[in-house]
Amino acid sequence: VSMAKSMNLLWGSGSPPCWRVMITLEEKKLQGYKHKLLSFEKGEHKSQEVLEINPRGQLPAFRHGDNIVNESAATCLYLENEFKSQGTKLIPDSPAERALMYQRMMEGLTLTDKLNAVIYYEWFVPEGERHNSAVNRNKEALATELKLWESYLQKVSAGSYLAGAFSLADVIVFPNIAFAFRFGLSVGRYPNLAKYYRFLKDRASIKSSWPPQWLPSAQGFDNLKDL
Amino acid sequence: VSMAKSMNLLWGSGSPPCWRVMITLEEKKLQGYKHKLLSFEKGEHKSQEVLEINPRGQLPAFRHGDNIVNESAATCLYLENEFKSQGTKLIPDSPAERALMYQRMMEGLTLTDKLNAVIYYEWFVPEGERHNSAVNRNKEALATELKLWESYLQKVSAGSYLAGAFSLADVIVFPNIAFAFRFGLSVGRYPNLAKYYRFLKDRASIKSSWPPQWLPSAQGFDNLKDL
Repeated sequence: VSMAKSMNLLWGSGSPPCWRVMITLEEKKLQGYKHKLLSFEKGEHKSQEVLEINPRGQLPAFRHGDNIVNESAATCLYLENEFKSQGTKLIPDSPAERALMYQRMMEGLTLTDKLNAVIYYEWFVPEGERHNSAVNRNKEALATELKLWESYLQKVSAGSYLAGAFSLADVIVFPNIAFAFRFGLSVGRYPNLAKYYRFLKDRASIKSSWPPQWLPSAQGFDNLKDL
Repeated sequence: VSMAKSMNLLWGSGSPPCWRVMITLEEKKLQGYKHKLLSFEKGEHKSQEVLEINPRGQLPAFRHGDNIVNESAATCLYLENEFKSQGTKLIPDSPAERALMYQRMMEGLTLTDKLNAVIYYEWFVPEGERHNSAVNRNKEALATELKLWESYLQKVSAGSYLAGAFSLADVIVFPNIAFAFRFGLSVGRYPNLAKYYRFLKDRASIKSSWPPQWLPSAQGFDNLKDL
């Protein structure tokens, strides 16, 4: 707990990168860390408070004592290494599972980019530069990406983790999958992703860090319904 | 050497992600690994040979025995973990340096994306969807990114590594910096990046894995000269 008290997380609700850090903190039994929920809508991620920790003006912004680690994959790797023997072991011992874990973890960052390119298209691209052909291409690229993850989950046994036991691969990837279903992804067309989602959504670390703005209603948006 | 013989790398010349893997293999004394240079121009990264290892049809494609790790940051983390006590130690022991290393390493992936958005704009964006305003915005985002790295290098002592001793942060970031200068980045406007480049370019692991297509001429392209 004294360790946790020297930690400070600035975060935004519904952001997969922020969620990853929170899941890791829960898994490593670091409850009691200081945190502050900021609003993307109000532009609070560009506030001085954030910029002092993260010059990119992005969330998460994370500090542990004098150590600053903002990039979510970096934060997860850092926390696992500092607290190896505390809570869940998030990097597997076997070289084969470790290889798979690092691979899926880093591929998870690509999945995030492809989700964002579709869901935040109008945020990223000014009105005069928008093209239906670009929207369609982004959607196709995302569908291809999601089908790749369908195939990865086909190979592991049903209702299973991405790389052996629960690991940083799941920490990085699960928030993306929850995000995709929140934005209307079809359960019928992505059955393995749906199974993975159901398998993990009630895990303690995930449930207790569930984005608060998603709680009032199970229904989200339908941006991805045609995918 | 017997370990190295069970490794196979498919790579493309001038690709920062491929170069990272090659630098790591050199640093970890894994010379003797099997490798094959493929041509992006000829579309060989989409060949069956690549797809069997990397379903994304991207290079690097890397196999160590039955373990497949294609994402460059994942490959570097995997190799460092499998061969911890062999060659250069690429993850620092001190928590403060380790925090900085993970942070810079992951930020290095963002730098790659921003470089690619400018240098490969015409490759990514079909003719009917191109806008000067988008080109300019991408260039401004890259200039902002490069200035951030200038400021990071200002904080470490002159002619120094990114996070204490030579580490995975340098392995991930250096190829981007070399790439930027190859594409015409101004030495005068980015003096800290230029110093870092000169400091590292003759390091044995970097020199021996220098992109062969860059060797015939020191002169590259001028895409970034106005940045």
